[in-house]
Amino acid sequence: MHNFTLYNPVKVLFGKGQIKELTNLITKGKKILLTYGGGSIKENGVYQQVISALDGYEIIEFAGIEANPEFNTLMKAVEVCKNKKIDLILAVGGGSIIDGTKFIAAAANYAGDPWEIMTKPDATINSAIPFGTVLTLPATGSEMNCGAVISRRENGDKLAFMNPLVFPQFSILDPETTYTLPKRQLQNGIVDPFIHVAEQYLTTDLNTPIQDGMAETVLKTLIKVGKDIVNGTKDYDTRASWMWAATNALNGFIGVGVDHDWATHMIGHELTAAYGLDHAQTLAIIAPKLWRHQMENKSAKLLKFAHNVWGLENSHDEIAIKQSIILTEEFFASLDIKLSLKEYDISPDYDKITKNLFKYSQTPLGERRNLDEKAVKEILQMAH
Amino acid sequence: MHNFTLYNPVKVLFGKGQIKELTNLITKGKKILLTYGGGSIKENGVYQQVISALDGYEIIEFAGIEANPEFNTLMKAVEVCKNKKIDLILAVGGGSIIDGTKFIAAAANYAGDPWEIMTKPDATINSAIPFGTVLTLPATGSEMNCGAVISRRENGDKLAFMNPLVFPQFSILDPETTYTLPKRQLQNGIVDPFIHVAEQYLTTDLNTPIQDGMAETVLKTLIKVGKDIVNGTKDYDTRASWMWAATNALNGFIGVGVDHDWATHMIGHELTAAYGLDHAQTLAIIAPKLWRHQMENKSAKLLKFAHNVWGLENSHDEIAIKQSIILTEEFFASLDIKLSLKEYDISPDYDKITKNLFKYSQTPLGERRNLDEKAVKEILQMAH
Repeated sequence: MHNFTLYNPVKVLFGKGQIKELTNLITKGKKILLTYGGGSIKENGVYQQVISALDGYEIIEFAGIEANPEFNTLMKAVEVCKNKKIDLILAVGGGSIIDGTKFIAAAANYAGDPWEIMTKPDATINSAIPFGTVLTLPATGSEMNCGAVISRRENGDKLAFMNPLVFPQFSILDPETTYTLPKRQLQNGIVDPFIHVAEQYLTTDLNTPIQDGMAETVLKTLIKVGKDIVNGTKDYDTRASWMWAATNALNGFIGVGVDHDWATHMIGHELTAAYGLDHAQTLAIIAPKLWRHQMENKSAKLLKFAHNVWGLENSHDEIAIKQSIILTEEFFASLDIKLSLKEYDISPDYDKITKNLFKYSQTPLGERRNLDEKAVKEILQMAH
Repeated sequence: MHNFTLYNPVKVLFGKGQIKELTNLITKGKKILLTYGGGSIKENGVYQQVISALDGYEIIEFAGIEANPEFNTLMKAVEVCKNKKIDLILAVGGGSIIDGTKFIAAAANYAGDPWEIMTKPDATINSAIPFGTVLTLPATGSEMNCGAVISRRENGDKLAFMNPLVFPQFSILDPETTYTLPKRQLQNGIVDPFIHVAEQYLTTDLNTPIQDGMAETVLKTLIKVGKDIVNGTKDYDTRASWMWAATNALNGFIGVGVDHDWATHMIGHELTAAYGLDHAQTLAIIAPKLWRHQMENKSAKLLKFAHNVWGLENSHDEIAIKQSIILTEEFFASLDIKLSLKEYDISPDYDKITKNLFKYSQTPLGERRNLDEKAVKEILQMAH
């Protein structure tokens, strides 16, 4: 096991009816910026619950944060924060709203050009505006971590940053807010946490039974609830298991002391930036191909995956590994999730994608730092 | 799943050599009270590592906190904190030192009679002296939670309190500090986290696959490493898996949204207070008897325990449940841990123990609040 530091001060309020606790979480008199997306929260009643809980507070609204939150949009919110002297931001929505809010919170207090937060690893973030979240789409885990992914479409960029100053102060997770999500977001909400776990679990075997068992628990839970979730079940416990699984996929606990991959994410981000695919759609396409490409390097953990997640204890090792990848693809396919770029009518420009991928850092990807431009092209070709 | 709030802001630094990070964790100029026990930290080099890391800091030492930390001892440390205007307490040791330090931290800032912290559920703790820990004995989980158990021998009391103001600011967990622990503490360090998990897991089945899977992971890890640990292995990964398992047994994650039992602990505390048994020794005796006494009420979770922890999927349900309890007893016995009071030459005074148990609260124990004086006596008789 590697040495590690674990720190996660997010206060999670989980369960039905928890939105009304906002009044106990936010001190009266605070000037609040309410960030949200395209308005679905007005259709499903979440907006009304929030406004009702915050009756008597001074609230300024900033709507219109898009999927893959856009730098230029977020900079408008940064201006509002500065002009209106916002005390606290309340993000209501899914991972894009929360990620965007993290950037707003940090950028509003940043001395230099805020785009440096995304592109300069040594950019110094000294403070951020405090914020909380009301999560309505289980998927990214952003509600309980300090990472965010921001896009800048004019540059074709989709980049990540992490900073302990952008942990949410609190996150409210009410499984009932997910009942009205459309099928595409339910599909994404299964794939996204599944691959988050895989990026931390399917790496090197470092003899870490606690982290591995937690990872396997999240994967098995997603497999167990996946079909019902995508079919739109209104069973509360199923929704709750899903929502809590997605948070635990990326709140730090699975990833302590182990090697991390994240190459699927890095490649996927480029496909989103170039072709507009949903984040989770890119992950479902890339991950199984990357595992096949790196089968030998990842064999010890793929075997645990085969045994402990897919129950293939009785197969020959190599067959079990190959079968575990096929079963994962079958699982995604059973949720009507596409497994190749071709199915989206995309013929990728391999050179352009790999070039953009290594634009800000030339370090090869993966837990072994062995996926260079050539390897990424090979994986993309497998993904076509 | 029940609604829940999860909040755990402890910064954990895990791994070999992490004690030297103290200098980065504590601001220069702080006046530190160093709390520890009987001096074993001077024999195993941990004291020297701490002092060397804190070269140049003003440190006042308070040694002599005993196992089952004693109110009257701790009150002497409270006086030191007040007289010397201590800024930060550093607890170096196991659960007793950390629990004792939590009480010191809260009592030093408490307006009334500090014993109220233990006996009055509505005692108002408005602040506590900040503190950090260097853990040397994996067992209680106190390094990553906000609970503490304190004894007052003159009253025959052993009582618990919890308060978010007594989360450690940081905890350093170096598995190498455990290499010199004596066998008895290694035994306790397996049983204690095992029963911590059981108190949260072997209750009601509320359809909580994430919490259940985490619980099973900790139990399976303890079963896997138990024998090697008690035999004094110096294998780093085995020590690290054990140490991290013990922390995760009681850092809140396994216990969110589920019913809690804790009757084994409550009964065990009385046995410690009356007969001086180690905390974990009492748990190993009481828990299996309590599970048998409550077999019907706990059957759904005992069956999961049988299937997922002990691999008894192919047995008849009732046989699997009984067998899982026997296998747990066999596991403890394989670590030379005694399973009855008789083996310690104790003939308990059932009336006295049950009377003292319900002294401050008459509420029956267990997740169903169904264990009254009569039931506790029956369990104690089974434990003789």
